[in-house]
Amino acid sequence: MLGVDQAVSALLEQARPLVQAEAVPLTGALGRILAEDIVAAIDVPPADNSAMDGYAFQHDDWPGEAAALPLSLRIPAGIDPEPLPAGTAARIFTGAHIPPGADTVVMQEHCTASARDVVIGRCPDRGANIRPRGQDITAGDRVMRAGRRFDAQGLGLLASLGLAEVPAYRRLRVAVISNGSELIEPGEIAAAGQIYNSNRYMLAGLLGDWGFEVQDMGIAPDEPAAIGELLQSAASAADVIVSSGGVSVGEEDHIKNVVADLGAIDLWKVAIKPGKPFAFGRVSETPFIGLPGNPSSVLVTALIMARPYLFACQGRDDGRVIPVKKVAKFALAGSPRQTYLRAKSTPDGVECHPRQSSGVLMSAVWGDGLVVQAPGQDIEKGEEIDFLPYAFLA
Amino acid sequence: MLGVDQAVSALLEQARPLVQAEAVPLTGALGRILAEDIVAAIDVPPADNSAMDGYAFQHDDWPGEAAALPLSLRIPAGIDPEPLPAGTAARIFTGAHIPPGADTVVMQEHCTASARDVVIGRCPDRGANIRPRGQDITAGDRVMRAGRRFDAQGLGLLASLGLAEVPAYRRLRVAVISNGSELIEPGEIAAAGQIYNSNRYMLAGLLGDWGFEVQDMGIAPDEPAAIGELLQSAASAADVIVSSGGVSVGEEDHIKNVVADLGAIDLWKVAIKPGKPFAFGRVSETPFIGLPGNPSSVLVTALIMARPYLFACQGRDDGRVIPVKKVAKFALAGSPRQTYLRAKSTPDGVECHPRQSSGVLMSAVWGDGLVVQAPGQDIEKGEEIDFLPYAFLA
Repeated sequence: MLGVDQAVSALLEQARPLVQAEAVPLTGALGRILAEDIVAAIDVPPADNSAMDGYAFQHDDWPGEAAALPLSLRIPAGIDPEPLPAGTAARIFTGAHIPPGADTVVMQEHCTASARDVVIGRCPDRGANIRPRGQDITAGDRVMRAGRRFDAQGLGLLASLGLAEVPAYRRLRVAVISNGSELIEPGEIAAAGQIYNSNRYMLAGLLGDWGFEVQDMGIAPDEPAAIGELLQSAASAADVIVSSGGVSVGEEDHIKNVVADLGAIDLWKVAIKPGKPFAFGRVSETPFIGLPGNPSSVLVTALIMARPYLFACQGRDDGRVIPVKKVAKFALAGSPRQTYLRAKSTPDGVECHPRQSSGVLMSAVWGDGLVVQAPGQDIEKGEEIDFLPYAFLA
Repeated sequence: MLGVDQAVSALLEQARPLVQAEAVPLTGALGRILAEDIVAAIDVPPADNSAMDGYAFQHDDWPGEAAALPLSLRIPAGIDPEPLPAGTAARIFTGAHIPPGADTVVMQEHCTASARDVVIGRCPDRGANIRPRGQDITAGDRVMRAGRRFDAQGLGLLASLGLAEVPAYRRLRVAVISNGSELIEPGEIAAAGQIYNSNRYMLAGLLGDWGFEVQDMGIAPDEPAAIGELLQSAASAADVIVSSGGVSVGEEDHIKNVVADLGAIDLWKVAIKPGKPFAFGRVSETPFIGLPGNPSSVLVTALIMARPYLFACQGRDDGRVIPVKKVAKFALAGSPRQTYLRAKSTPDGVECHPRQSSGVLMSAVWGDGLVVQAPGQDIEKGEEIDFLPYAFLA
């Protein structure tokens, strides 16, 4: 059996970006992935400017705490100031450029001003309250690396460089197929023997949160020729195919034979719990990921194994995540497989849902992440353990 | 000065859901907020079913490890099985309903089967390999509370209950106004004195990640009558107005006077760093939040103060987050204000960006969260400190 880390590494070795770059307006870039490194073309801020509302002056001109400096200029933010005449001060506002001839700003709270002059009661150090040109960014700095997701601060940073358009990868298209002749869709009436398809909605949700375009192929019919047609249309519509169910060794599991006929498929034995059956292959040249059928197994294998692979196909650099340390509020003997326990964090530790059956989604809705239990690791109450918040896997 | 927790509590006291519920198809519910508790109408699974591919039989009928049971039924998933004749076994597949008369499933790997009969070499315990009806959910269970964001597992859970439509709050509409006559938009040519508007893009990104509808009002002109018109149109277009800049005490900061004329405004002194000036009020009856103007101050006050308030206005229950504990890889003396340090987590701790100036967005792009430094708290290297991953604030 492959260890989980081995399996993820093996998947990543076969992954490469499957999408081209395109120019995207900054206003539409949230959640997209930067396709090229960004090098700053300008300094930010573009000039020395005032960190507060106050008075700009030349430090050498300070006449002492009781004498006044005449006011010669008024500089609101947004204008290009004239030089400051020697022996005078300028009224200045937050963000306004420092005039040539001034080297210090005093905050207005330390001054007594009239319309004509200002008494600087307490003289700050030379250079005080000035944000220097290039403090944030210097032209030529590499400010962002390809592979980064555009988040709010990234958008703000690129806006501050004046970029109205950015190079982003096209969104990865992922086809979703649900296998199982017992499945019907929500809203239909379930006959005896039938159950509602939940994996389709869960997978669409995960893929949507990951910023992909979801091609929903519906439920695969229980008939090889029809499955083959569905797979071929998924292969031409999408960059990657993800299916749930139908990949164990049972004689009712047709999909693996059909994928083998149309391309190639490997059944992987991964030491992961929940989630034993995992298939990886291709339909024509389109990568195919076959997840288990039980909802919790789908959730765990999607988060732990499919996610890093799909992120790499999208050109994202953040597929691998670092767990946080939490104190266990439970004890649990280890298993031979690496176990992902549906768990909930509290201010003083982490609790584990009492029912960890792979068919049960309630535990994943109840909690906010997964405890990672290494093969053979017995968890003692009070011990520090690894916890993966779902928020880190979004 | 108000402490940060006090300020957030004061904001939350004034918050209430500002949006109505509407029916949303499950396929469009990702990121929306559940508006009513969900009570299960059915059991999940709806009947006892097989946990694996194998043979279903009556435990009392086991003839011993060498004798055969005749095969009387074949039960793939999805059908309503006939009763099992006494003294026989049924071929059964994962997810298929257990036929009346059977009480145990044996995995196929422990059997030797022909077309007519099966030898069960190792008899499991009575009831083995059967997932009982209602194991996941029992009809009448309250499975999800109003206020929860629809994530992937939540969608999967409601799909398993057969729900094709769910009650969700309408998306909160938030108007964004940028103040500062020095601002120009990315893509334009900056004259001396002008800087690019970055807060607009950062705020739009945050609000977008939070699932709100953003009404971008652009840059407020530096003229009270025009600001008034802009605010009034924001108030009628949106549920909440968020503005950046223009709320400090400087005489160039018009927005607070205009808001006061059109409704009410309070300038709050909050002991938060970065981010001192914070205003809260209303334009007519629309709540108004005035954030500072420096990008890092906007980021921190938006994440720490505006976010819980806006979540409550949207009907969300997850506005308050629990920091994680991390080992400090730096030392830093405390400040009188609660300080949010832009920081980066590593497998063995958390580093702090060397430049924490409030004008600097690079530090927020470099890292993955905020160290929370309480007022007066001196941080020692190697000490456990509070860290708020940005992922928790998304």
